[in-house]
Amino acid sequence: MKDNVKVAAVQMEPKLKKNDENLEKITLRIREAAGEGAELIVFPECALSGYMFNNRKEALPYAETIRGPVTERLTELCHELGVHVVVGMLEVDGDQCFNVAILVGPQGLVGKYRKTHLPFLGVDRFLDQGNEPFQVYRTPIGNIGLHICYDCNFPETARVMALQGADILALPTNWPTGRGNISLYVVNTRALENLVHVVAADRVGVERGSTFLGMSKIARAGGDTLAEGSRDSEEILYAEVRLAEARQKRIVIKPGEFELDFIGDRRPELYGRITYLGVPEPM
Amino acid sequence: MKDNVKVAAVQMEPKLKKNDENLEKITLRIREAAGEGAELIVFPECALSGYMFNNRKEALPYAETIRGPVTERLTELCHELGVHVVVGMLEVDGDQCFNVAILVGPQGLVGKYRKTHLPFLGVDRFLDQGNEPFQVYRTPIGNIGLHICYDCNFPETARVMALQGADILALPTNWPTGRGNISLYVVNTRALENLVHVVAADRVGVERGSTFLGMSKIARAGGDTLAEGSRDSEEILYAEVRLAEARQKRIVIKPGEFELDFIGDRRPELYGRITYLGVPEPM
Repeated sequence: MKDNVKVAAVQMEPKLKKNDENLEKITLRIREAAGEGAELIVFPECALSGYMFNNRKEALPYAETIRGPVTERLTELCHELGVHVVVGMLEVDGDQCFNVAILVGPQGLVGKYRKTHLPFLGVDRFLDQGNEPFQVYRTPIGNIGLHICYDCNFPETARVMALQGADILALPTNWPTGRGNISLYVVNTRALENLVHVVAADRVGVERGSTFLGMSKIARAGGDTLAEGSRDSEEILYAEVRLAEARQKRIVIKPGEFELDFIGDRRPELYGRITYLGVPEPM
Repeated sequence: MKDNVKVAAVQMEPKLKKNDENLEKITLRIREAAGEGAELIVFPECALSGYMFNNRKEALPYAETIRGPVTERLTELCHELGVHVVVGMLEVDGDQCFNVAILVGPQGLVGKYRKTHLPFLGVDRFLDQGNEPFQVYRTPIGNIGLHICYDCNFPETARVMALQGADILALPTNWPTGRGNISLYVVNTRALENLVHVVAADRVGVERGSTFLGMSKIARAGGDTLAEGSRDSEEILYAEVRLAEARQKRIVIKPGEFELDFIGDRRPELYGRITYLGVPEPM
């Protein structure tokens, strides 16, 4: 098993409806990050198309089939450079349209995730909801889970992937300003409570009046921040993560005296259906 | 329905095996906090007995029955002052012994929670595991959920109580130093992802060679920090929380354009059994 993996989060500003231009920038960033030794390179949500479409009809021409020309282009590049990439884009499939993250490696498309938690925001308002369970993809650089932006607010998302053995969770995102607590607190918490590495790549810039947050983040298993993006600049964050750290779920601080296991010590029999019962009025 | 509730987290240093002295201190702090207008006053885990017992036999004489003299004393005080308190203590019940948090109000004992997630640490190594599902208690100052220390690392704990309509989660805790990420990240995340207020009261000081963290915290629904404790001093943190904020789960930022609902937008059908499948080797 590989031990250290160098990961990168590309904080960039995609341009709305400029798929070719965005793909060109993605290509350049992949070359740059690969040149720095990165093996897993994560891009923001909708990095290929932009996000703030006004309606579904407007968005559809900027959605692509998967597989398609974009996955082909990325595969060639990953093959040439020996890297894996996660890229956010819109997918058209028959008359359906999804917000997706794809995982591409040297041998081609490894995984595709269709966003399952859709906020009432941006293009998500007009898209189809992903309905497939969360999956973890085995690769030579670890077991990688995919989720997108709003998904990470729901603790169940990362939990389900950690329980499937994820080492690294890739999070392409488009956090709007005002949601800074997600970067400040939630990314680290997912890494802590599940003992997985999290690579969150956010966008920057303004699109149709909406400003995005930046503050991309790489957090290691246990919750420490390894790298953090600015609020306004394009940049690439790098960090080395150890796969073994995500696999040793039992943390032994003093043997036989102080040991923690955030997976093994769970009490699922007490979590019930986790069904919302509504809010009872106080007495 | 009440709107604003003033809450307090009492960061204190209990003394091991000094139940009378600790109860005296708890009494003084309740009077002080009530004098400042606090209506819910939360104390650390094992505030009555201390935590670093070497074995069960040593701990048993410092465990109390519930109800018992302590609940009686606290009831009198809550009745006199018109407050609710949450206190961590050890409970003896027949031949069983639990790490518990009790909620006491002017009318007496409102709730009791027996710690369900037991770390391999301190007295928890020798105690019986609580096996009752998490509960939320209706009071005139909101719906209050109880959990203890290690529980809060498991996102299911707060989730289950939020789904039962909790407004405020009380967290008596004994965080050891080295676990600072829990205070830095996890408390705020629970408040954010569930839209509940969280009052975490930690201890300070050294007990049998183990140093405790302090860093008590009050976070409001949405995740902002309202008050934060030092790393070494006894002190009382105060904050006002709005119950309505914990009850309006749909956050409307721009009506019809940007709306979030961390409860309503859940996809439980995709969370499966949330069963650990073990860690598959990467390819």
